[in-house]
Amino acid sequence: MANNESVDWQFSGSDESVDWQFSGSDEGKAASEASLSTYTSKLFALCDPQGKAILPPRGETAETSPGPAQKVHTAERAVVKAVLFGTGNAYAPSIGLPAAKRAVADYLNRDLPKQLSPDDVFMTVGCKQAIELAVDTLAKPNANILLPKPGYPSNLIRSIFKHLEVRNYEFLREKNYEIDLDSVRAAADENTFAIFIINPHNPNGNTYSEAHLLAVLARELGITVVSDEVFRWSVFGSNPFVPMGKFSSIVPVVTLGSISKGWSVPGWRTGWIALHDLDGVFKSKNVLAAIKQFLDLNSKPPTVIQAAIPTILEKTGKDFFQRRQSFLKVATEFAYYKLKSIPSLTCYMKPEACTFFWTELNLSSFVDIEDDEDFCEKLATEENLVLLPGIAFTLKNWVRHSIDMDTPTLEDAFDRLKSFCDRHSISGETPRKAVNGVN
Amino acid sequence: MANNESVDWQFSGSDESVDWQFSGSDEGKAASEASLSTYTSKLFALCDPQGKAILPPRGETAETSPGPAQKVHTAERAVVKAVLFGTGNAYAPSIGLPAAKRAVADYLNRDLPKQLSPDDVFMTVGCKQAIELAVDTLAKPNANILLPKPGYPSNLIRSIFKHLEVRNYEFLREKNYEIDLDSVRAAADENTFAIFIINPHNPNGNTYSEAHLLAVLARELGITVVSDEVFRWSVFGSNPFVPMGKFSSIVPVVTLGSISKGWSVPGWRTGWIALHDLDGVFKSKNVLAAIKQFLDLNSKPPTVIQAAIPTILEKTGKDFFQRRQSFLKVATEFAYYKLKSIPSLTCYMKPEACTFFWTELNLSSFVDIEDDEDFCEKLATEENLVLLPGIAFTLKNWVRHSIDMDTPTLEDAFDRLKSFCDRHSISGETPRKAVNGVN
Repeated sequence: MANNESVDWQFSGSDESVDWQFSGSDEGKAASEASLSTYTSKLFALCDPQGKAILPPRGETAETSPGPAQKVHTAERAVVKAVLFGTGNAYAPSIGLPAAKRAVADYLNRDLPKQLSPDDVFMTVGCKQAIELAVDTLAKPNANILLPKPGYPSNLIRSIFKHLEVRNYEFLREKNYEIDLDSVRAAADENTFAIFIINPHNPNGNTYSEAHLLAVLARELGITVVSDEVFRWSVFGSNPFVPMGKFSSIVPVVTLGSISKGWSVPGWRTGWIALHDLDGVFKSKNVLAAIKQFLDLNSKPPTVIQAAIPTILEKTGKDFFQRRQSFLKVATEFAYYKLKSIPSLTCYMKPEACTFFWTELNLSSFVDIEDDEDFCEKLATEENLVLLPGIAFTLKNWVRHSIDMDTPTLEDAFDRLKSFCDRHSISGETPRKAVNGVN
Repeated sequence: MANNESVDWQFSGSDESVDWQFSGSDEGKAASEASLSTYTSKLFALCDPQGKAILPPRGETAETSPGPAQKVHTAERAVVKAVLFGTGNAYAPSIGLPAAKRAVADYLNRDLPKQLSPDDVFMTVGCKQAIELAVDTLAKPNANILLPKPGYPSNLIRSIFKHLEVRNYEFLREKNYEIDLDSVRAAADENTFAIFIINPHNPNGNTYSEAHLLAVLARELGITVVSDEVFRWSVFGSNPFVPMGKFSSIVPVVTLGSISKGWSVPGWRTGWIALHDLDGVFKSKNVLAAIKQFLDLNSKPPTVIQAAIPTILEKTGKDFFQRRQSFLKVATEFAYYKLKSIPSLTCYMKPEACTFFWTELNLSSFVDIEDDEDFCEKLATEENLVLLPGIAFTLKNWVRHSIDMDTPTLEDAFDRLKSFCDRHSISGETPRKAVNGVN
């Protein structure tokens, strides 16, 4: 027996007759193919590394770089301190480090008439897990959910919302992209449990000024409002950002956030979900218990970043955000000016928030562009310039441009875009629509 | 209309008639109740904060503290550098930062005859997500899986393995807890796709010296071996740790790891999965694609820690681990010596790895202890000492003791344990079994 064994385990793996009883699942295939990073990787791969500089500049990152080097002094110092003092080395409670929960509640309370307690806040692996958490814990069987179109990337929708019926609501393009409340009412029925909003909205680039009307409608429909507010620090227009939690005397509200965008540190993977309850509805519906159970079982954000959250939220000065907002405002004005000379792209509203332009392709003005994907692929191939196709955000024949670049780089990017569009347009023909503020 | 609106949104939430269309899901309830942190929290809550020091000492942590303060100089410096240089601020590719994947491959390759490429390694949110990933991507429909008993915490099993049939294999207690290969063979059938092993084994506290026999058996059964090796740096006995990847010329092997235990930083949430392929079986079975899809859609480990992984793995000196191993060896010897005077607890093997003792309760020797949970609850209440009940690891009437304490604290802990056991034992009766090396 011992002899047999010593012979047996020496054999090589060349015996092809083994019928291996495992195989790769392809459950995630469709959603994965629709991910922003899949689109981005494909488009960057079309660029010519020997050609002109590839734009937007790209580091060792999948989807977005944090933009031009930001000095995140306060946040960096806070994490360094947590590392050196060892305050973030151990497991945190699955609902989040108490100090981090308290700091998020205090921070959000600055703008709220009805104060949150630390118990209303739960820490998550970025805002993405906060979205998952909200869906998993609020949905009832056979439920449907209202999502903005455009809005979340297709892959998020396919993976997070896969057990639900997704219904879309629209925006009023000519009314500064306010939510079309009629479309919300039309989409909702007795199985709708929540409406998700993104405020400030990516990719539309605006803040909602009629959130109270939405709250009233949501109450009428008996649904909760889940508000993704990751871009709240990137607002540079005249409309202020109004957190949805302000209206929790009308309707139970869930807000989602993270430090990813405001501090340009998406790689730190730390976000939160906050429950703005109305008369204890969340508690009586067992939502708090469900959240705790979800977090017990799923991935947790790094304790070492959670430990730094109090300092990051309390000590980051207003000037830090103002510098960033000024930068984005300058980039937006410049990009909007440059866009005027490209009639085949329509930007219906100058963005007031976020770091993107969202424009419609005037397909009929092109001679050889099939759709948004074709546009983006040819653009990357010919100009080493990467825009994302609208289909990645569930809206075909639009494109999303990053404007998170300094002025000379942005000028280069828009010159290439114009040159590309001119080259592929029906020469001399009047553009189909009034575009970019120019009739 | 505008008038109506301005009236409407002022109403308070006191209208009780709204039928809110969401509710907290209780899908995670059972698994969450079985989590180690639920057990630990319940037991710590039974302790008297006004009484003697609660043991093991507990910081602001849910399940385990990293033990006595460790100086993790190299790892700390590496993360501080990543923070200050901003190399870990952006999103990483979902499969992991290339530099981290390369560093893990290089590190594992030190012990492997068949070298891994960086493409065989994927970064995960701690070892826990690596387990999830292995299950989700390898399982076929109607599959079953072989798990060690004792082994993974019940909540992990209930949440991660919920779509699968779980079958257990056993250990040979009198043979230094080697895997009982007959029990593996008996449990497996044509729907079995993998056997999970934990090596070094928590809670048994040993390393496997017969891994090659397991590899041969797995090949015969056509199943892959998934080896959780997080405790590979906490080995202090005479048996060396042999990585399962060594046997990938016999059977396709998946190894799981993380820096959590070796560097005492579970809060950094960074681990990995490595595929030790055999003749391209994983590739032909689409496993690599499935892993990529899983990671595209799920939570990612913090980039800022991933960026530090190369330095952490390459530069941490042997003396760092040797100090830690010596500490654990001293604690083990001392605890084993103390345990000899407690006949109602049986430790079948002096641990050679990990940071725990795993002992069987001789229930018949107690006058008023019902089972392991009852034992742990009474112990916490009476002695401010927290042990975890075996049921948390799927084996009833055993207990797991942390021995990760300095000698005086450990002495205190075992004196309390002895005093408790004496108080609840049938006085004067000879213990049922030969225990703790003393007949």
